[in-house]
Amino acid sequence: MPYPIKVEVINFGDELLVGIRDNAHLTYLGEQLARYGLPIHRARIITDDLDEIKKAFTDAWAHSDVVITTGGLGPTADDMTRESIAEALGAELVFDPSIEEAIQARFKVMGRSMAAHHLKQCYRFKDGIVLPNDRGTAPGLSYRAGGKWLIMLPGPTHELQPMFEKTVLAMLQSAGVLTEEEAYLQIRTCGSGESTVEQVLQPLIERYPSVAVAFCVHYGIVDVRLSSRGGSMTSAELKLIGQEARELVGDDFVCFGHCSLAKVVFHELRALDRTLAVAESCTGGALADTFTNISGASKVFAGGVVCYTNDVKMDILGVPECLLDQHGAVSSECAVALASGVAEKFSTDYGLSITGFAGPGGGDEANPVGTIHLGYHSPVGVWCKTVRYTGGRLDVKARAVHAALDWMRRKLKKYKMEEMLCCGGKD
Amino acid sequence: MPYPIKVEVINFGDELLVGIRDNAHLTYLGEQLARYGLPIHRARIITDDLDEIKKAFTDAWAHSDVVITTGGLGPTADDMTRESIAEALGAELVFDPSIEEAIQARFKVMGRSMAAHHLKQCYRFKDGIVLPNDRGTAPGLSYRAGGKWLIMLPGPTHELQPMFEKTVLAMLQSAGVLTEEEAYLQIRTCGSGESTVEQVLQPLIERYPSVAVAFCVHYGIVDVRLSSRGGSMTSAELKLIGQEARELVGDDFVCFGHCSLAKVVFHELRALDRTLAVAESCTGGALADTFTNISGASKVFAGGVVCYTNDVKMDILGVPECLLDQHGAVSSECAVALASGVAEKFSTDYGLSITGFAGPGGGDEANPVGTIHLGYHSPVGVWCKTVRYTGGRLDVKARAVHAALDWMRRKLKKYKMEEMLCCGGKD
Repeated sequence: MPYPIKVEVINFGDELLVGIRDNAHLTYLGEQLARYGLPIHRARIITDDLDEIKKAFTDAWAHSDVVITTGGLGPTADDMTRESIAEALGAELVFDPSIEEAIQARFKVMGRSMAAHHLKQCYRFKDGIVLPNDRGTAPGLSYRAGGKWLIMLPGPTHELQPMFEKTVLAMLQSAGVLTEEEAYLQIRTCGSGESTVEQVLQPLIERYPSVAVAFCVHYGIVDVRLSSRGGSMTSAELKLIGQEARELVGDDFVCFGHCSLAKVVFHELRALDRTLAVAESCTGGALADTFTNISGASKVFAGGVVCYTNDVKMDILGVPECLLDQHGAVSSECAVALASGVAEKFSTDYGLSITGFAGPGGGDEANPVGTIHLGYHSPVGVWCKTVRYTGGRLDVKARAVHAALDWMRRKLKKYKMEEMLCCGGKD
Repeated sequence: MPYPIKVEVINFGDELLVGIRDNAHLTYLGEQLARYGLPIHRARIITDDLDEIKKAFTDAWAHSDVVITTGGLGPTADDMTRESIAEALGAELVFDPSIEEAIQARFKVMGRSMAAHHLKQCYRFKDGIVLPNDRGTAPGLSYRAGGKWLIMLPGPTHELQPMFEKTVLAMLQSAGVLTEEEAYLQIRTCGSGESTVEQVLQPLIERYPSVAVAFCVHYGIVDVRLSSRGGSMTSAELKLIGQEARELVGDDFVCFGHCSLAKVVFHELRALDRTLAVAESCTGGALADTFTNISGASKVFAGGVVCYTNDVKMDILGVPECLLDQHGAVSSECAVALASGVAEKFSTDYGLSITGFAGPGGGDEANPVGTIHLGYHSPVGVWCKTVRYTGGRLDVKARAVHAALDWMRRKLKKYKMEEMLCCGGKD
């Protein structure tokens, strides 16, 4: 294949064009491919129209080296993508009895029988191969011709992702299209803005002109991706430079790689063998939700309280009424009382709390909309912190969750020795 | 403009191609445009490369009637989209002092002074107009030539969305590109699969061949969109057919339009002047999060407990230990105890609970991974229900949240009279 290899993604599905669903396939494939050295060059989203499918595919096939499609492999009459693309390629589709067997077997397990319309899913390119689907009926398809490569993946996320990770990744790696090792070194940071992180890393950027540096920002997290321009550097050399970068960003360093802030906190607590509970007002469950997205979270995470009223703060979490009268529910004092209250009531070692005005309503002069107070209760002390964000209700919720997790991560790191030695906790 | 008008969206931004961020702009614009009669015909996501930008734009301008771009209007050296597109169009950019004034004024409010690099944001197409940006520095741009229309929108969501709703929508409506009224009638249903809903509506589909019917599915919700083929029907006629459709889908009917299940429940409770609290095990805060995404939720929603351990279920929500011993935490019995427990502890009229195995770990023969028990406590009775889903941990969480909300919506509807008469509640 030529260098640089151009990879293009075509997503089929009207639901992506009429606002029904975010294009999660593009996000997923983009992340996976960039991680192994082949950022997506271009993507298109195409309506379910035979003519459009043919036109878009023909153009992509002419201008790109690897074309990955998603969707359109279902059993219904609408799903004619396979046939349209075969026509555009001038390639023959053949019936493959082994696909029928696999679909039959799948239906048998479900205690149902295979319907006739599934027969159209049993075709593959004559000179192509079949990508097995463990989770659904439509297999993926791979076809190579004229130095180009077509990979067709099914639409459902829980079918596409395992297929990519189990089969496609290795296939592209062994063909040298993707790298075996991760192609960039990602340093995840939190606490400073993109321009500050860039400034902090400036000496390093100047010292190593053969290292390409890219920044990606999401809700307060700034990811720095270091890669070797033209591939002149080994991954060991890149790792050394990554270590230098880590030292430059200091306490803003979250992790190498893609770990979520919640997962970093989870691992720290797991290592300490300690437990956590959370109390949320304005984030309303989003913090707990983040923790419980981690498989196995229950080893550390006992749960939390969403306390949307003062009564709940008092009755369930023991916040004193006089505290609420004096300082209000959106205050540092209340944040601390919530954190300690939830740790006590849930018998956990740690408590983390968030209270504030997510907007658009609420807020006053002292605490305008976007003001968030965080509270932290640990075996070695209690703290509070105030942050302020602009943006819509959902943005403020997401930023506040990241701020709380990042703050807890820093505290855990700073007081590591004390926390390890501390004999408090689960008694 | 020709009919049908072809609208194409081009999203600029490497972060969309390397898995940093879902393409929320496409989802948003797709929803808005389809709602007003112009579904997006095609979309592309383009890397920040001058040559690619020019090529993609030239192709889009040749094949589409309306081209909407997002991103690339920032002040940094990377943001050359404006210039590349002007070059591709052969159109002149001119410095517009009124843009500079607006940016200066914005910086003044923030107590900062305008940096020199913002000057490049002060250019507009010579024969084009400026779309004011209330929330950021980069204004949007509009340019019409040769029967075609280019609209360039800024990248940040909180700038793009208000600009679209305040300026672009009206502009496209008054030019007759978008309809003044919503172009389709959406019937949101929950409870049956897509093919069942289609079957139920079959008599109506056959009786009105000039009505186009489209289905959109998301986590258990099936949206039915009715529109008039070729625009031969008035919106009043469509509404009458919508009423017929509503009767056919029966209890599966959630609402006309785009209201979330949580919002439907919220409105019902608001009308009854009643309150709700939730108890969540496997959904871990996702149910509460959905409620607290509603602005003003606190009028109804008191909060909830994420009870990830048996201790929390017992200590905070009063679930009897013997019940957990006998039936386990993933059981109908526990679901009911959680719902009643949270309603009692939070002094609310209603309690809704979810317990189950979201996977990938956990589960047993009686309750395999994906088994979810729901509990409901109301002034007129308590109920439980069991559902089962396949899919990954996050899918199961999302489906379970919808299942719980849909179930509560049905119960509220069924016992409306009793609940209105019931003198229980806030005492």
